[in-house]
Amino acid sequence: MKTWKTLSRKTVLNHSNFLKVEEHVIELPDGQIIPDWSWVLAPDYINVVALTEAGEFICFRQTKYAVEGTSLAVVGGYLEAGELPLEAAKRELLEETGYEAPDWRDLGSYAVDGNRGAGNAHFFLAQNARRVAEINADDLEEQELLFLTRAEVEAALQAGDFKALPWAAVVALALLRLNKGH
Amino acid sequence: MKTWKTLSRKTVLNHSNFLKVEEHVIELPDGQIIPDWSWVLAPDYINVVALTEAGEFICFRQTKYAVEGTSLAVVGGYLEAGELPLEAAKRELLEETGYEAPDWRDLGSYAVDGNRGAGNAHFFLAQNARRVAEINADDLEEQELLFLTRAEVEAALQAGDFKALPWAAVVALALLRLNKGH
Repeated sequence: MKTWKTLSRKTVLNHSNFLKVEEHVIELPDGQIIPDWSWVLAPDYINVVALTEAGEFICFRQTKYAVEGTSLAVVGGYLEAGELPLEAAKRELLEETGYEAPDWRDLGSYAVDGNRGAGNAHFFLAQNARRVAEINADDLEEQELLFLTRAEVEAALQAGDFKALPWAAVVALALLRLNKGH
Repeated sequence: MKTWKTLSRKTVLNHSNFLKVEEHVIELPDGQIIPDWSWVLAPDYINVVALTEAGEFICFRQTKYAVEGTSLAVVGGYLEAGELPLEAAKRELLEETGYEAPDWRDLGSYAVDGNRGAGNAHFFLAQNARRVAEINADDLEEQELLFLTRAEVEAALQAGDFKALPWAAVVALALLRLNKGH
């Protein structure tokens, strides 16, 4: 099975470090040319489902610009320059919650948009987290820290209370991993 | 908890029906103004985890421009103008696989990017699907239809073989729903 070939690329929007758009000339395996395929450059981000030593899920109730009203959420943020995904995950967990965790599992890395890129999402499960510091978040949104049971998280996920795609995805992947018990 | 207020918006890139970018002037709850928040307009899309009457998962092995090599995938596509998500899901299932299903469950709708929008993902679980037609897909990618067991899908998900975020998300949500048995 042959992949598409990028023949050339040019920037059509250089908005900020958070969003650039390119236009690619692409050759398909059958020789067909797509002259104007849009391609989105956005920073990679991480999300973390973190559980305390007591097995509580560390969540937020918060606002988010793309979401109506409030949503349940988990720890997340963009990678900084040169940062590895796991480093970013540990930094964001500490900044946003004041917690550190000794046990980390990789829940995978995924292209945010299979057609247009838009960066990669890197997901983690952190267990046995302990409070070690004050919250030191630089997020612009209002957010409230919540500690939920696994049953509460499962019910909230099924009810659609995690309203952004990466939050629902990482919570579902974490629950499957926890249900498997390894 | 107060949400952000859009004071004004202007289009900064009108690339195609698949991608437009706006710049918004936003007022935060504390009165702070963000003069240049980028906002992505992309069409809503659906993904479907479809199971045959025998309980096999209808998947694809395919290429995708944002993904290295090949990936496992599920039925998916953009909503057409005026189309409801469930209508699009039924249409894409039929076009891409030749299957129809009598039993549909809603797995939720999610903002693709909590900060910048980029449309909404609408996820479904379809059960007891039966072959009723030939495949009639208009997708540009090469793809091969596969029928996987639940154990194979769980293992593939954990191994990272569903490489795009919406595919991993809908498969994880479907597995959780199936494991709950309702």
